[in-house]
Amino acid sequence: MTDATAALKLIDDSLEGAIERLFSFVRIPSISADPAYSADCDKAAAWIAAEFQALGCKASVRPTPGKPMVVAHYTPPDSGRKLPHVLFYGHYDVQPADPLDLWKNPPFEPQRIKNKAGVELLVGRGTADDKGQLMTFVEAARALIATNGSLPFKATFLIEGEEESGSPSLVPFLKENREELSCDVAFVCDTNMWDAKTPAITTRLRGLVHEEVTVIGPSIDLHSGMYGGPATNPIRALSRLVSSLHDAKGKVTIPGFYEGVSELPAAVKKQWASLKFSEKKFLGAVGLKTAAGEKGRSVLEQIWARPTAELNGMWGGYTGAGTKTVIPSKAFAKFTFRLVGKQNPAKVLKAFQRFAREQMMGDAKIAFSGKGGGSPASEISESNPFIRLSAAALKAEFKREAVLMGSGGSIPIVRHFKDILGMDSVLVGFGLDDDAIHSPNEKYNLSSFHRGMRSWVRIMGALGQ
Amino acid sequence: MTDATAALKLIDDSLEGAIERLFSFVRIPSISADPAYSADCDKAAAWIAAEFQALGCKASVRPTPGKPMVVAHYTPPDSGRKLPHVLFYGHYDVQPADPLDLWKNPPFEPQRIKNKAGVELLVGRGTADDKGQLMTFVEAARALIATNGSLPFKATFLIEGEEESGSPSLVPFLKENREELSCDVAFVCDTNMWDAKTPAITTRLRGLVHEEVTVIGPSIDLHSGMYGGPATNPIRALSRLVSSLHDAKGKVTIPGFYEGVSELPAAVKKQWASLKFSEKKFLGAVGLKTAAGEKGRSVLEQIWARPTAELNGMWGGYTGAGTKTVIPSKAFAKFTFRLVGKQNPAKVLKAFQRFAREQMMGDAKIAFSGKGGGSPASEISESNPFIRLSAAALKAEFKREAVLMGSGGSIPIVRHFKDILGMDSVLVGFGLDDDAIHSPNEKYNLSSFHRGMRSWVRIMGALGQ
Repeated sequence: MTDATAALKLIDDSLEGAIERLFSFVRIPSISADPAYSADCDKAAAWIAAEFQALGCKASVRPTPGKPMVVAHYTPPDSGRKLPHVLFYGHYDVQPADPLDLWKNPPFEPQRIKNKAGVELLVGRGTADDKGQLMTFVEAARALIATNGSLPFKATFLIEGEEESGSPSLVPFLKENREELSCDVAFVCDTNMWDAKTPAITTRLRGLVHEEVTVIGPSIDLHSGMYGGPATNPIRALSRLVSSLHDAKGKVTIPGFYEGVSELPAAVKKQWASLKFSEKKFLGAVGLKTAAGEKGRSVLEQIWARPTAELNGMWGGYTGAGTKTVIPSKAFAKFTFRLVGKQNPAKVLKAFQRFAREQMMGDAKIAFSGKGGGSPASEISESNPFIRLSAAALKAEFKREAVLMGSGGSIPIVRHFKDILGMDSVLVGFGLDDDAIHSPNEKYNLSSFHRGMRSWVRIMGALGQ
Repeated sequence: MTDATAALKLIDDSLEGAIERLFSFVRIPSISADPAYSADCDKAAAWIAAEFQALGCKASVRPTPGKPMVVAHYTPPDSGRKLPHVLFYGHYDVQPADPLDLWKNPPFEPQRIKNKAGVELLVGRGTADDKGQLMTFVEAARALIATNGSLPFKATFLIEGEEESGSPSLVPFLKENREELSCDVAFVCDTNMWDAKTPAITTRLRGLVHEEVTVIGPSIDLHSGMYGGPATNPIRALSRLVSSLHDAKGKVTIPGFYEGVSELPAAVKKQWASLKFSEKKFLGAVGLKTAAGEKGRSVLEQIWARPTAELNGMWGGYTGAGTKTVIPSKAFAKFTFRLVGKQNPAKVLKAFQRFAREQMMGDAKIAFSGKGGGSPASEISESNPFIRLSAAALKAEFKREAVLMGSGGSIPIVRHFKDILGMDSVLVGFGLDDDAIHSPNEKYNLSSFHRGMRSWVRIMGALGQ
C-alpha cells in the first residue's frame, strides 16, 4: 500500500529544486526540425537519461537514423504481487523559436515571472511542450521513491526527440523494440487541461499529414518589366491552388478528402455542448472574432472532430527590404492536413497532389517534397480502467470532475502504441490554451507544473492499489 | 567639324582599359534597395564623379534624403557657334544580388568569359544594368576628347543612385535644380537593342506603381492543431486576393484598372507584327512555352502596350527546414503594376487598395505600406530630330536600320524629364534580352559594350555637325 501523503508534501516542499531542474532542461535548445541544433538534441537526450539513472532506472540513449530515443526501465523490489507495467511517454525536442524578435526573454533562458494578473509563469521554449509536462511525472516518481522507497509498479519511460518534426524514426524503433516497450498501458503527458482549474483527459485526437510543394514558373528570376504579362508567375499559380482549397462554406474542396469522416454521435455532441465553451473567449484570446472553419459547426467540433487543410508557410520572390521588380522562378508552400475518423493519410496526400496538379495554370509545374508523412486520427475508449483510475486521481487533486475531451492536435504516438504495441494510451496533461506552445513567449503556469506533479503522485499511488 | 574616325580607332585600341574601368565600378556593391549597402552607394557615386572630373567636367556628388546624385557639366571651348546642350543619364545603383547561391561567380567580382557559343561576356551584377551601359557614353566622351581635344557640344551628366528602388529623391532633385539640368534633349542609356546585331531606340515605356501589403490574421502565431479550422489564416486570405486579381482570360479584375488604356493604333500594330518577333524563342529562353497574359494579344503587345498586375514576392509563416505546424499571424506580399497609356498611378493604387480590402475574409485585415510610389507610362515622338540623328548614327555603326520599339520596363526619368525639365528623351541602349539584369549571373556582351561606345562616338560626333 503506497502512501502518497508524504510524497505530496515532498513535492510542495521541494518545488524550487524541481523548477531548477526543468530550467536546466529548457536551456538546451533541442530543436529537432533544424539540423543546426542536432548536437543540442543529443545533449537533451543525455540530460534526461541521467535523470532516469538518478531514479534508479536502467536508462539508455538509443541511436536512430534521426534523433536518439531515451528508454529507461524501473523495476521495483519483488513484492510477490503481480504489479502493473506502465509506460510513460514524453518528448525532449522542441519547436523552432523563430520569430526571435517577438520573444520578451530569450527562448532558451527560462525565467519564473508573474503576469499582470499575478499568476506565476515559467517562460521559455519547451517549458510546456513538452519538457515541463514530462518533468511532472519524472518529479512525481522521484518524490514517491524518496518517501516510499520505491514505485508500486513496473515502469518504462520512453522519451523521443522527433515529435516536433514528424517522428520519422518512431515506428521503426517501436517495431524493433516491440517486446521491450509493450506494457499494460501508456501514459502520455503532452495535452491540456480543460481550464486552469479543471483537469482533463483527452480521448480524441486528430491525425496529421503534411506536404511541402515547389511551384516552378520560368527557369530563372525575370524582370517584371521585360516579362510582366506573358510570363507565368509561380506565386500566382500557388495562390490559385491555396485559394481553391476551400469553398465559400469553409469545406475542403479536394475530391475524396472527406472519405472516412463521420458525423459526430449525438451523445458526444451533447456532452461537448454542455461544456459551456466560450467561442468568443477562445478566439478573442488570439485576436480573432469569427470562426473561419466549416459553416454551421461549433468551434469545438471544428477543432476536435473536423479535418482541415492549412498553410503553415508560403514564400517566393523578393522578401527583403524595399522593392525588387522580379517575377520569381519558384514559389514554395508548406501544407498540413488535420485528419479525423478513418481518413487515410496516404490517400489524403495523394488526393491533394492530384488536386494541386490540376490547379496549375499556364507553364506552372508543381513538385512535391516526397517527404509527406502522417498518421491517422485516434479515439480511446472512455471505459478503459486506467482512464477511470486517472480521472478519480485528478478529481482528488483538483476537487473537480475531469473533462473527457478532444484535441485538435496530433499525437501520432497514441496510434502507434495501439497499432504496434497493442496498448491504449491515457492522455493526461496540464497545459493551458494560452501556453503559446508553438509561438514566441511559450510558458507553463507554475500551478500546471506543481499540480501536475501532485496529480502524477496520486495516479502512481493508485496504480499500486 | 568633329572627326569621329580617330575616336573610333582609339575605342578599339583601348578596349582593355575600358573593361578594367567598368570592372572597378562593378566591384562596388551599390545596392540601393538594401540599407546595408548605403556606404557602397556613396562609394559608387564618388567613383563615377571622379571619372567625370578626369574628362574635364565640373563634377559634384550631391546629397539627397536618399542616395546621392552625381551631376557633371562639360563646357567646350567657345567656338562662337551656338552648340546644343545635351544631358546624359544613367544610374550607378544596382539590383540586390540574391539568391546568391545561383551565381556561378560572386556577383561583385566581375569577369570576362566566353560562353559555350564563343561569345565574350562581361559578367557580374551591374555589368549591364546600368554600370556597363552608362560607361559606354563616358568612354565615348573620353575618346572624343582625347582625339579631338573637346566635345562638340555642351554636356550635362546626371547619374542617380535610386533607380532600382523607386527613385524617391529624383523628382524633388529635378525640381530644385530645374535650371541647371534643363537641356535641349536627354540621352538615356538603360534600354536594349532589338537583337545582338540590330540597334534600337525605345520610344514607348510602361509606367509602374508598387505596393507592399501585410495581411493580419490572429494576433500571434498559432498551433495548427489547436486552432486549425476556426482560425483565420492570413496566407489563405492573401492567396485569395492574389488569385482574384486576374480573370480566366488573363485580364486584371480591379474595377477601373483599365481606365486610360487605349487600343494600339493599327499602324503601330502592323509595324510590330513586321518585326518577326519569335514568341517561342523569347519564352523558351526562360523555360516557358505559353504566353500567360491577356488572351488574344501578342507577346509584344502584352509587354509593350498592356498593363499588368504582378507579384514580386510573398511570404508568411514558417519558411525554414522541416515542418512547423503553425498558423501564422501575418502574411506579406509585394505587388507591382505596369502601366500604359494614360493610366494614373495614384488612381490605380487606390483602386487596388479598395479591391484588396474587399477580398479579405473572416477576421483577416490588410494594411498597406503607404510607400506606394509610381510613374505613368511615356511615349516619345518618332519625328524628334535627336531620334532621327541617333537612328542614322546607329545605322552607320551596325549597318542595319535601328528598330523603333517599345519596352515593358519603366524608366520614370523619361516622364520626369518631360514634365519637370520640358525635354524629350532619346533612349539608346545596348542591352540584350538575355542579360539577366535582375537575376543571378547578370552579363553584358562584350560586343554590346564595344559597339555601344562606338555608337556614342558617332552620335556625339553628329551632335557637332
